Amino acid sequence: MARVLTPRAEDFPRWYQDLIAKAQLADNGPVRGTMVIRPTGYALWERMQGEMDARIKAAGAENAYFPLFIPESYLRREAQHVEGFSPELAVVTHAGGKELAEPIVVRPTSETIFGEFMAKWVDSYRDLPLLLNQWANVVRWELRPRTFLRTTEFLWQEGHTAHATEADAAAYARRILHHVYEDFMVNLLAIPVVPGRKTVGERFAGATNTMTLEAMMGDGKALQMGTSHELGQNFAKAFDITYSSQAGSLEHCWTTSWGSTTRMIGGLIMVHGDDSGLRIPPRLAPVQANIMVVKAGEGVAEAAAKLRDELAAAGVRVTLDDRADVPFGRRAVDAELKGIPVRIEVGPRDLAAGNAVLVRRITGAKAPVPLGEVVAAVTAALKADQQQLFDDALALREERTVDVKTLGDALEAAQTGWARVPWSAVGVEGEAEANGKAVTVRCL
Amino acid sequence: MARVLTPRAEDFPRWYQDLIAKAQLADNGPVRGTMVIRPTGYALWERMQGEMDARIKAAGAENAYFPLFIPESYLRREAQHVEGFSPELAVVTHAGGKELAEPIVVRPTSETIFGEFMAKWVDSYRDLPLLLNQWANVVRWELRPRTFLRTTEFLWQEGHTAHATEADAAAYARRILHHVYEDFMVNLLAIPVVPGRKTVGERFAGATNTMTLEAMMGDGKALQMGTSHELGQNFAKAFDITYSSQAGSLEHCWTTSWGSTTRMIGGLIMVHGDDSGLRIPPRLAPVQANIMVVKAGEGVAEAAAKLRDELAAAGVRVTLDDRADVPFGRRAVDAELKGIPVRIEVGPRDLAAGNAVLVRRITGAKAPVPLGEVVAAVTAALKADQQQLFDDALALREERTVDVKTLGDALEAAQTGWARVPWSAVGVEGEAEANGKAVTVRCL
Ligand SMILES: [Zn+2]
Ligand SMILES: [Zn+2]
Repeated sequence: MARVLTPRAEDFPRWYQDLIAKAQLADNGPVRGTMVIRPTGYALWERMQGEMDARIKAAGAENAYFPLFIPESYLRREAQHVEGFSPELAVVTHAGGKELAEPIVVRPTSETIFGEFMAKWVDSYRDLPLLLNQWANVVRWELRPRTFLRTTEFLWQEGHTAHATEADAAAYARRILHHVYEDFMVNLLAIPVVPGRKTVGERFAGATNTMTLEAMMGDGKALQMGTSHELGQNFAKAFDITYSSQAGSLEHCWTTSWGSTTRMIGGLIMVHGDDSGLRIPPRLAPVQANIMVVKAGEGVAEAAAKLRDELAAAGVRVTLDDRADVPFGRRAVDAELKGIPVRIEVGPRDLAAGNAVLVRRITGAKAPVPLGEVVAAVTAALKADQQQLFDDALALREERTVDVKTLGDALEAAQTGWARVPWSAVGVEGEAEANGKAVTVRCL
Repeated sequence: MARVLTPRAEDFPRWYQDLIAKAQLADNGPVRGTMVIRPTGYALWERMQGEMDARIKAAGAENAYFPLFIPESYLRREAQHVEGFSPELAVVTHAGGKELAEPIVVRPTSETIFGEFMAKWVDSYRDLPLLLNQWANVVRWELRPRTFLRTTEFLWQEGHTAHATEADAAAYARRILHHVYEDFMVNLLAIPVVPGRKTVGERFAGATNTMTLEAMMGDGKALQMGTSHELGQNFAKAFDITYSSQAGSLEHCWTTSWGSTTRMIGGLIMVHGDDSGLRIPPRLAPVQANIMVVKAGEGVAEAAAKLRDELAAAGVRVTLDDRADVPFGRRAVDAELKGIPVRIEVGPRDLAAGNAVLVRRITGAKAPVPLGEVVAAVTAALKADQQQLFDDALALREERTVDVKTLGDALEAAQTGWARVPWSAVGVEGEAEANGKAVTVRCL
């Protein structure tokens, strides 16, 4: 069989770009670091949005929409924040045919503008907690872009909340980390993420604590899949977000922010992809089962349509590929590249025996199934293979994570995977040394 | 009763801004013409998106996402397009701490960048039609902004399609106009829109035909609620979107584009709002029924919770307001401002008689209903009041539209409503004269 992608073992980054191109997930945009998310890729994002949004709403947050354009002066109000983002900003200087009096920043994140309006909307302790979220695009100029992972423009949700007490803010930031992000990543993406805290050096600009979910990719490297920040009173003081307490005193709020992005698509690819393409966890998959007419023949079209209706009635997201004039091999390779979990082949020969052939993308298993048992077999396969992907990812992570006692051993282990090392053996100086060798302390 | 809003008859534009502020739909953003869409307003947009998106997908289009940033040179490739949009552009000149070699335009619309990629993706007639849509923000610098109606940044969906023949493109642009937009506006928004063609002078920049859906607002003026454009081969020629035909020749595609925006929220307000606030059509409403505990008392909380569960089980989008410590009058005024279609009051006195009180926002009707009949009464009210809003809007439009024979009579009629006049009595010169008097030819 002709090789479809650069094998992962040969060149992992190249395999990644090959897969994105050949599965038609995304293209590079004309402006440096931007991307065009194609329908196959965007359907993944829509599924992620829907599942994540339901969890965010269940955590009590409401969606809103804040402007793309932020006055440059807003960012300057919080010292660490402006320092952290300045090198990445895109700035609008001309609009409506004129030069602007004050330059406008294209939002790299929206803590500042949420802060400005939270200050207007919060009056008394009765208005708290104020729990907001938005789905939006943001821009951070990228010098070394990589599709989905680091792009100049990306899509995300950003939550921003204000609380009366530090404890309430801390609890909410953790609720989002675990009940929204971790739950989604483990149960939908089938990725065994490790929750933890970032070191002081790796914190978000303006945060007092940054919590992260780290996942191990197929090459043993780590990817940050989502973050939840406690911002202390830093933004509340910069934007005067105050409330009158039950006792009548004027207090500053405690705020949080948290985000997850289209980078998750990159993580999904790098955790579950193989040398034939993407493998999408069944619970996430926009299309869970693809019925393929192998070739035309007596009763084939009818049998395929009947299976599609039965699967749809059973709640399976199903498509029917009846392009009998396009070579079957080409269509099969394409469906494997795109990672559709289950393929049901319907052709004259198997049909004569009363069968269809069930091919499972995740395990590679292939077997004839009596027509009357297809729905049950597909449902069982979707469930089992969701678990299989998670188990495989977990097994890889455990295999590639070692417990070490010294920084030296940790740096060695980081060449092929992760090292679990006591922070007392690393410290701030050790972290700097590791960073110099392109190794990062991912979480505490 | 204290007046909540400036009455519509006194000052319609002021009433509109009052309503948006007091119903907490939106605030003005810090950068000229931008807006913050608050949760109450954004929930309307989410419902619009969901319903519209389902219709767009049913019409065969797939969602994708294209970059916010477009090289300035792209816009210059189609002469009418650049001329139409130049005065409204926001331009990024600095990014990543440096001045850019080529200025970047923040998309005012995406025909050009879709064109660039359609040219790459379309190869043969088998790739056609290519039917794409995206949900995104766009920026057009506004000198006279009005919340939702004309804002510097707004949210929208923009569809872009490529076809093999002029006839196929024409049919698809009409399919979207009628089966997506008109169906949604009539059946969800309860707005009797008039579909028609724009005059040559009112066409989209670069279109060969612009079709529109016009609605009459509460003050007798017209609002464009959505547009669908035939672009001929203008963009196909500017971006080289070609295909090899079945006969083997190389042909330019025929393209369309079509869009609907957050302006629809403005239209919804101006068509259905009254002096007490918004009135949301029940099928659109994020919250259809609001159960209000009038005051605490024996069994009140239990009865209210039971009604909520019953209504939810019957598929009604329901909320429970049990803040018995907040004055009932204040809560009722707020719910009326926000336009929730049905209110169910639960209090000790009515409960003793086995009743709740059903208050219908749209008709103003108020009557006690036995607890066991609340679900049926609410369901019936939601259905009837959806129709009532449509009927009222249609009656107003018919009352305010006159048939006239001359341009002079049309201009007079336009002071209080619409005039239906033969195009032969207007013509291009008449249109120019009308425009000079702030009257526009809305559709043919
Ligand atoms: Zn302060
Ligand atoms: Zn050409």
